[in-house]
Amino acid sequence: MTIRALVWGENVHEHENATVGALYPDGMHGTIAAALRADGIEAETAILQEPEHGLADERLARTDVLLWWGHKAHGRVEDAVVERVQRHVWQGMGLLVLHSGHFSKIFKRLMGTPCSLTWREAGERERVWTVNPNHPIAAGLPPFFELEQSEMYGEPFAVPEPSETVFLSWYQGGEVFRSGMTWQRGGGRIFYFAPGHEVYPLYHDPNVQRVLGNAVRWAHNPAPRWTGIEQAPNRPVDQAPEPIEARGPSLHKAGEAGYR
Amino acid sequence: MTIRALVWGENVHEHENATVGALYPDGMHGTIAAALRADGIEAETAILQEPEHGLADERLARTDVLLWWGHKAHGRVEDAVVERVQRHVWQGMGLLVLHSGHFSKIFKRLMGTPCSLTWREAGERERVWTVNPNHPIAAGLPPFFELEQSEMYGEPFAVPEPSETVFLSWYQGGEVFRSGMTWQRGGGRIFYFAPGHEVYPLYHDPNVQRVLGNAVRWAHNPAPRWTGIEQAPNRPVDQAPEPIEARGPSLHKAGEAGYR
Amino acid sequence: MTIRALVWGENVHEHENATVGALYPDGMHGTIAAALRADGIEAETAILQEPEHGLADERLARTDVLLWWGHKAHGRVEDAVVERVQRHVWQGMGLLVLHSGHFSKIFKRLMGTPCSLTWREAGERERVWTVNPNHPIAAGLPPFFELEQSEMYGEPFAVPEPSETVFLSWYQGGEVFRSGMTWQRGGGRIFYFAPGHEVYPLYHDPNVQRVLGNAVRWAHNPAPRWTGIEQAPNRPVDQAPEPIEARGPSLHKAGEAGYR
Amino acid sequence: MTIRALVWGENVHEHENATVGALYPDGMHGTIAAALRADGIEAETAILQEPEHGLADERLARTDVLLWWGHKAHGRVEDAVVERVQRHVWQGMGLLVLHSGHFSKIFKRLMGTPCSLTWREAGERERVWTVNPNHPIAAGLPPFFELEQSEMYGEPFAVPEPSETVFLSWYQGGEVFRSGMTWQRGGGRIFYFAPGHEVYPLYHDPNVQRVLGNAVRWAHNPAPRWTGIEQAPNRPVDQAPEPIEARGPSLHKAGEAGYR
Repeated sequence: MTIRALVWGENVHEHENATVGALYPDGMHGTIAAALRADGIEAETAILQEPEHGLADERLARTDVLLWWGHKAHGRVEDAVVERVQRHVWQGMGLLVLHSGHFSKIFKRLMGTPCSLTWREAGERERVWTVNPNHPIAAGLPPFFELEQSEMYGEPFAVPEPSETVFLSWYQGGEVFRSGMTWQRGGGRIFYFAPGHEVYPLYHDPNVQRVLGNAVRWAHNPAPRWTGIEQAPNRPVDQAPEPIEARGPSLHKAGEAGYR
Repeated sequence: MTIRALVWGENVHEHENATVGALYPDGMHGTIAAALRADGIEAETAILQEPEHGLADERLARTDVLLWWGHKAHGRVEDAVVERVQRHVWQGMGLLVLHSGHFSKIFKRLMGTPCSLTWREAGERERVWTVNPNHPIAAGLPPFFELEQSEMYGEPFAVPEPSETVFLSWYQGGEVFRSGMTWQRGGGRIFYFAPGHEVYPLYHDPNVQRVLGNAVRWAHNPAPRWTGIEQAPNRPVDQAPEPIEARGPSLHKAGEAGYR
Repeated sequence: MTIRALVWGENVHEHENATVGALYPDGMHGTIAAALRADGIEAETAILQEPEHGLADERLARTDVLLWWGHKAHGRVEDAVVERVQRHVWQGMGLLVLHSGHFSKIFKRLMGTPCSLTWREAGERERVWTVNPNHPIAAGLPPFFELEQSEMYGEPFAVPEPSETVFLSWYQGGEVFRSGMTWQRGGGRIFYFAPGHEVYPLYHDPNVQRVLGNAVRWAHNPAPRWTGIEQAPNRPVDQAPEPIEARGPSLHKAGEAGYR
Repeated sequence: MTIRALVWGENVHEHENATVGALYPDGMHGTIAAALRADGIEAETAILQEPEHGLADERLARTDVLLWWGHKAHGRVEDAVVERVQRHVWQGMGLLVLHSGHFSKIFKRLMGTPCSLTWREAGERERVWTVNPNHPIAAGLPPFFELEQSEMYGEPFAVPEPSETVFLSWYQGGEVFRSGMTWQRGGGRIFYFAPGHEVYPLYHDPNVQRVLGNAVRWAHNPAPRWTGIEQAPNRPVDQAPEPIEARGPSLHKAGEAGYR
């Protein structure tokens, strides 16, 4: 079964910063999507500047896994679109949050925490260690791989305790970071991956590309969308699995919806 | 050390519904606070109708654990107050979410999920089972306790996988529910407890009261508030724990704050 | 890719108890294996009475997922075989532990807890609720399904907090049970499923069969076996990822293995 | 309430290795116990060479938290004593496993995994980062602390996904390690802490001592011992919480114990 990924890019620094523009002439989203396609995944792109940021409801409905890269323009993403993406994650769409996307609206909403961290942009070496070698996201990776120049992201990373810690990063300047973690929200699987600072050629790195392809496959939930996940259905007395009779006082009239 | 609890009540049905008013002449919040005080906890109350819903910043700053009961008026709680409560939870304030509070703004924000469930108001019997008998929240409780009349809350309960499942409920009509679960968000410990429908005398029940007292003690985090949890501090090159030199291109100027 | 399952049966009550023998003329293991084959899984069987209980090393090496049903003869399973099975789970073989297998040596070893519970054999009704509807193990199942006659298994179930709770059971006599849970140990995924008492036709039930087929697919880890998981390799100074020099006192001579 | 800790030491290298002997004239266990006492904890010691390794049942029964340091002589610890310790952990005794104790029989039994890792003894620098600053075990600690000489312990560390990751370590030679993690088994809280190689003065380090004191307080479970955790009590039909009648076939006679 072909997996349909959608790579969302903020698409700002590619045009404002010459280094970024030279590294990613097709946009970071373009480079990521090309890598996914080379890995057998059907990948399209969407950007901030498109109507509805390229994330119309029908497009999300046919997306198995959304990848999210944002940095400078988190505040320009419309709340209505963020809510829509969140709804699709709840219903089963996978989500990969990349690098500076830790501060995106969508990630903070899904985590329920500030998602803060410490950082340093010094072009230092990062070494990504696999702590869970048989995890699907680590398939085919060596015990560690190095990124000769990277932005340091350091602990404490204010996210909820993850379902699984897949990668830990070592930085030349002395910090460590839980650089690959998973969570689930409703039917949606979520993976955060730290490497990806835009002034370095990180999305051209074969190991980084392999992580992303693996993670897309992992985050793909083949179950039908859980469309009723936001509803709180009343199961009336006459439909109780065991026969019971209503008794005592009540607040709601028969057939009345619950409060929200 | 005395623990300072604050019991927040929506305070609507107590005045609109005669049954609720008769059961809780001091409000549900009043009954809960009295029970906590009888358990050695310093407990105050706050209600929706007060300025800032009784949840001014300085009041939350001196609160160890907040209890939240809301049902009909979730939508009337101001977003600014919800954000303030969330910030205090992140910094270390404990939070107990009670019954219909599953649909409160604050719980949904902290969970990152819809927090939906199924329900039935039939005055049926609920039996609360302890699955984790040595958990502090279960201290002094029997293997199970019964609530002769309760509102049914059924699965699926759309919350993230909990840190711990403490209680499971059995309902006469045939459903089950994870009725006591814990999570952590930043420095704040969160406990959800299902029993508490307003037309039944549930907050007068000694076992329910014991759960609440235990949970307040459990949720109390004596650490100083984690005031910087929302910040993403830059650790510049000259303050790196290991000596490094900056190299390569950069996006940020020295001393510049990160994007949000 | 075809998944190779191996269904292990204790194969005692089928021969000692007329009811069980009549329900399962091919053994419970035979019925389960036939159901898996009908679901597209390549399934074989092994029994206690075979040499090495049918679990020779080379057989486990080509098994993707092992299913374990035992009850009366837990003590007759040789420790050497249990250790071998545990090793294969660590290396990536999936394991489904069924019903009274909660007290098997292999499950207790992998959990590190007593795996005790309460029980009653009264032919009462069990209703299995899905709490995680988009989980692969719940694929195609209704919100709940009923088993008209079942053995009650009740909380507290002394297992570690699971990775995921997939099913909860309601019993006619008033108990509840976390009847479907997942864990991971090394590369191996583990699923416990409660229904399966031998005097009732539970493994003929289509919903139970669907759970088992789903769980086999979920527990299958396509990664190569993690053969080195029990080793603690020394990474000597001259192979450190960053250049360092040894300094100070030492306990071990160069090239010496660590203590175990 | 005074907490009673018991520090178990293998007590071998202190006598065989001059460096270790000079660093720890009272044994590593003696140094650790003295540090705990200075922190207000009632601490005693026990060693491998005592009868029953100093871990008689009545002694464990009055121990709130056991600390375990072993390295060279894991194999000399009697299985009966290991089973006894495990039983007390299940019933609620806290356990701190230190450094090379990762390969102790008791830790492997409680985890259900091989507990392997990679290692290097080069006297290199370790930097311990707090990832969960408001966790009780991190109370009073700085964002990171350094151990100028330490043994490297590297990932993958073959333990189950923890309840909480409290500390991560950075090593000069390029590795990372989850150096402080928590789990629960039955009523017992377990904490593993990596620093503690015997040829360096690590247990004289004030930050290490603070971690151990904090962890003892955290691991202390004031609940009564869960003495029945290994039992699987039958709850007969006439004692079912809801009135039911037995029906259909049965395997067990009334009053018969379950199989184990």
